[in-house]
Amino acid sequence: MMNYGIQFWSNDDFIIEDGKVKVNHRHQPALIDIVKKVREDGYRGPLLLRFPHLIQKQINQIFKNFNHAIKTYHYDASFRAVFPLKVNQFPNFVLPLVRYAQELDYGLEAGSKAELILAMAYTRLGAPITVNGFKDREMISLGFIAASMGHDITLTIEGLGELETIIEVSKVMGKPCPNIGLRIRLHSTGVGIWAKSGGINAKFGLTSTELLEAVKMLEKSNLLKKFTMIHFHIGSQISDISPLKKAIREAGNIYVELRKMGAKHLKGVNIGGGLAIEYTQHEGKQDRNYTLEEFAGDVIFALKEIAKDKKEPAPDIYIESGRFIAASHAVLVAPVLELFSQEYTEDALNLKEKNPPLIEELVDLYKSINERYAIEYLHDSLDHLESLLTLFDLGYIDLQDRSNTEILVHLIIKKVIRILKHKNHSDIIRIQKEVQERYLLNCSFFQSIPDFWGLGQNFPVMPLDRLNTRPTRSASLWDITCDSDGEITFNIKRPLFLHDIDVKKEEYFLGFFLVGAYQEVLGMRHNLFTHPTEFTIEFNDDGHQIENLQEAQTILDVLDDIDYNTKEIERNLRQRIEESILDEETRKEVLGQLYVMLSENGYLRTVFNGER
Amino acid sequence: MMNYGIQFWSNDDFIIEDGKVKVNHRHQPALIDIVKKVREDGYRGPLLLRFPHLIQKQINQIFKNFNHAIKTYHYDASFRAVFPLKVNQFPNFVLPLVRYAQELDYGLEAGSKAELILAMAYTRLGAPITVNGFKDREMISLGFIAASMGHDITLTIEGLGELETIIEVSKVMGKPCPNIGLRIRLHSTGVGIWAKSGGINAKFGLTSTELLEAVKMLEKSNLLKKFTMIHFHIGSQISDISPLKKAIREAGNIYVELRKMGAKHLKGVNIGGGLAIEYTQHEGKQDRNYTLEEFAGDVIFALKEIAKDKKEPAPDIYIESGRFIAASHAVLVAPVLELFSQEYTEDALNLKEKNPPLIEELVDLYKSINERYAIEYLHDSLDHLESLLTLFDLGYIDLQDRSNTEILVHLIIKKVIRILKHKNHSDIIRIQKEVQERYLLNCSFFQSIPDFWGLGQNFPVMPLDRLNTRPTRSASLWDITCDSDGEITFNIKRPLFLHDIDVKKEEYFLGFFLVGAYQEVLGMRHNLFTHPTEFTIEFNDDGHQIENLQEAQTILDVLDDIDYNTKEIERNLRQRIEESILDEETRKEVLGQLYVMLSENGYLRTVFNGER
Repeated sequence: MMNYGIQFWSNDDFIIEDGKVKVNHRHQPALIDIVKKVREDGYRGPLLLRFPHLIQKQINQIFKNFNHAIKTYHYDASFRAVFPLKVNQFPNFVLPLVRYAQELDYGLEAGSKAELILAMAYTRLGAPITVNGFKDREMISLGFIAASMGHDITLTIEGLGELETIIEVSKVMGKPCPNIGLRIRLHSTGVGIWAKSGGINAKFGLTSTELLEAVKMLEKSNLLKKFTMIHFHIGSQISDISPLKKAIREAGNIYVELRKMGAKHLKGVNIGGGLAIEYTQHEGKQDRNYTLEEFAGDVIFALKEIAKDKKEPAPDIYIESGRFIAASHAVLVAPVLELFSQEYTEDALNLKEKNPPLIEELVDLYKSINERYAIEYLHDSLDHLESLLTLFDLGYIDLQDRSNTEILVHLIIKKVIRILKHKNHSDIIRIQKEVQERYLLNCSFFQSIPDFWGLGQNFPVMPLDRLNTRPTRSASLWDITCDSDGEITFNIKRPLFLHDIDVKKEEYFLGFFLVGAYQEVLGMRHNLFTHPTEFTIEFNDDGHQIENLQEAQTILDVLDDIDYNTKEIERNLRQRIEESILDEETRKEVLGQLYVMLSENGYLRTVFNGER
Repeated sequence: MMNYGIQFWSNDDFIIEDGKVKVNHRHQPALIDIVKKVREDGYRGPLLLRFPHLIQKQINQIFKNFNHAIKTYHYDASFRAVFPLKVNQFPNFVLPLVRYAQELDYGLEAGSKAELILAMAYTRLGAPITVNGFKDREMISLGFIAASMGHDITLTIEGLGELETIIEVSKVMGKPCPNIGLRIRLHSTGVGIWAKSGGINAKFGLTSTELLEAVKMLEKSNLLKKFTMIHFHIGSQISDISPLKKAIREAGNIYVELRKMGAKHLKGVNIGGGLAIEYTQHEGKQDRNYTLEEFAGDVIFALKEIAKDKKEPAPDIYIESGRFIAASHAVLVAPVLELFSQEYTEDALNLKEKNPPLIEELVDLYKSINERYAIEYLHDSLDHLESLLTLFDLGYIDLQDRSNTEILVHLIIKKVIRILKHKNHSDIIRIQKEVQERYLLNCSFFQSIPDFWGLGQNFPVMPLDRLNTRPTRSASLWDITCDSDGEITFNIKRPLFLHDIDVKKEEYFLGFFLVGAYQEVLGMRHNLFTHPTEFTIEFNDDGHQIENLQEAQTILDVLDDIDYNTKEIERNLRQRIEESILDEETRKEVLGQLYVMLSENGYLRTVFNGER
């Protein structure tokens, strides 16, 4: 049986039992049952399932591990954390998170005005708010307003210009002034796809020279007492722990040196985000080489040592991990609409009485193939394929000949693969890739997993049921956009095997896991496909219930969203029906059908006889 | 003077005159003047300018060139074209396009239900509608409704399953049945970033064997007379003409063979899109090796020859070029917010009486550097930099030492570059890259040029004015998202030079050109930055006027869009202000400020003293 690497990526959040993927919480409901229940109410297309208990689990994990390390090393300062809203701003994620945060000192990070508004509206007074990214006078004023509301807010400065603006605004708005953080530019760099954040040429942060200048400016304007934090971020999804350790050492020394220079209110080191998530489905292909426990221990230990050496108080530690908190809470479920089979049998052959000589040769090759000459015959048949396709383009053979060519070469390839299965010949590997079955999914990869398009990020994917049956088809996945990039192929060394199903008779669903971080807000409306229908699974003592069900936008809504006059569209369509050749009764019927479609979402619904 | 390669990419749509970029149409207004006029009304942040006359120009170009080729080669069939809506569905683009299409046989292509609704509402009866992409029963029914409205609509089949569904729907919905197209899978493949569309393993299309099967199915269900078109698409932005020529030959032969097999109503070959746009700003780096005239001539000539050879009537030619039509009509203008300078002068040095030995050595190196030993000294200083940074991390030197190190190494690099400017040493090239000036732009690359993130596509970029002054700074560009991927760096061999401006005193705007295709609908709301403020420039006899001005969404709108209860947000914020330490009067004032901000868009507004 295949377990789709669930032991690597699921973190025990999901398990396989009775051939189904189940949520490993309380009464352990199967995803497929949840999905079928929702579909009974008529919802079609892709579904986004949210599990708030996994948000809580991840928050608790972070606090538990850091507080454990603090205890272990007798660290004499506190641990504080914020969730960076850019990772997921959607209310059905943020509101549960804020609810769980009530019990902890857990706040929000904002990187834009809209995010700062959210942070101000939903962070518990007392929990930290940090503000990163570039800020104008208005956004800085908003920070002052937050401070006057009683928020524990820190504005992190990305450049000296921003600091000037803070100083100016403080003259106008007076007290209370928000805390000020300085983003430091490290020479240590991250490792991984997102490594650019850190490093001496990074987009963000102040050099040492600028730090000294900043302290002078703060002193001069009597704001040094508001300078409480230094901040860095070495990159998202840190795969290797060692650059982080270097960065901590560097930042720790900057912290003590700044204090020695008189920044006596500096009491926090914000280590940014970057805590990685394990996406891999394959042994030996892990995305990170550390555990959260090790991560926390390394941070605490390094800062403790530096503070002790330099006889300064240990700093409070702030963390801004987002991916780690958000990724696991959301699962995308996409129905399989169709299999585009590459299966040809001998029956499909339609040989003529007299065939072109090269086709006769293909027939011979197919018949006489054997282990000894398999590769040689394979190469011959591929040569013949090229030649025959060229003959077609030049008008020498007809469509029936071309079809026979396709089928014969396909049959030869299959036979060679069968004969040489036990060997590892590179031609076979290359060709096996070509015979991946194409599974068409009712979703848009651009909308639901944009990081696949932008960064080549693979998300764990597996069928929701049939897991006690061996899957036999090496698959590639297609979405329903008209874009050739909407295709996920798999390395033949790490193939995705799926079941051989008949979509006309049975339903088959794939789940994409760990899609809760970044994917929603980066979602693109390619072909006007929108955010999928989403809902939340809340567990209680009696089982679980579906909440906050929000259907994907209707077609009219999408068009309204991009600023069409939808009344005009309806009017045009109605008018054209009224002026059509249809009889009165049919017109009414057609108009009715049309209105139903306009009020449905744009994903596919009914294919063939059954509903998918 | 630099002209930013305008001769390569602008297609004479824009010209440089009096140091400004001007629209090369009628009275030739300068972009900077248009932008300043709009900003006078208080609009801030990035602006998207639309030029409908360029849509018209491109449509005319396509028709002119194809009709010219038809005349030249005495081609005995017609040319028809559709605009693929996926390239740009926004009304301020589509509605002018539809207006211009009235005079021509120019229709729309749809790849999803929402797009099909648009096509049905806005295509002139008689102009073609083509429908590509995967279709369910509802979408196919919609096609039947379009046919009954009198639309000339063709449903292109991507797989045999769809054809089955059409046959089923036709039994229910009866006549009129839409025309049916079959997407063919070619063995010829495209070249370029988007090459996957064509080819034997492409996402779309039927193999020869499936074509034969399709014809049988059509015959059996008495729908063969509705089979009127074959379709292929070898990929977007075709850089090289030769794969297209091969594809045409292959498709042409499929066309004649299908006719010979009895598909006598087959009368159209749809060659899809792919006509490339020239994005390059640099000589010798062109994106395509053909002209539109050559493209049209090759298509017409090849199809004519094949039809003649096989004694079949020449097919009508359909084209679905989108990028070619849409790209040039839109220009993104982003204000520069700040320069993050890497300039240090000797004044910034703050050497101690006694410095660490390696710093003393750096001082010596800096003083004694000369042409002969320049590279050696450079390497030494980079070594020392590494060592000194490590010493800092280990707590051996302090922040002032670290700052002196940064400055000294910077001074040494600048001096070496100055001394060796005339040589082409690889170290120098590498290091020059490091001293690119960082220009911070008030826009989001994720929102406004997503293809930069996803495909590494570069768009022509240049300042809107100061073009009679030599720009002196090699630049890299940053956006205002909190994402390290929001940075455009330039290959040192093809640098972007910008002007050395003082953003506190003067305004400076960069224009990104050719952003009218795909970028809008793929725009991501990273950090909740939304589609920029947009407007249309309509020319008339008296000059031009600004129309359809649509401001970027307000912060409350964005939050509403992702389904927040904005009333609750407002209530929370108000309550926190009311419960704050502020006095009565200040509360009112702050509440007022807050409401203003909530009703503004999320981009930056005021930086430093001046407005940007």
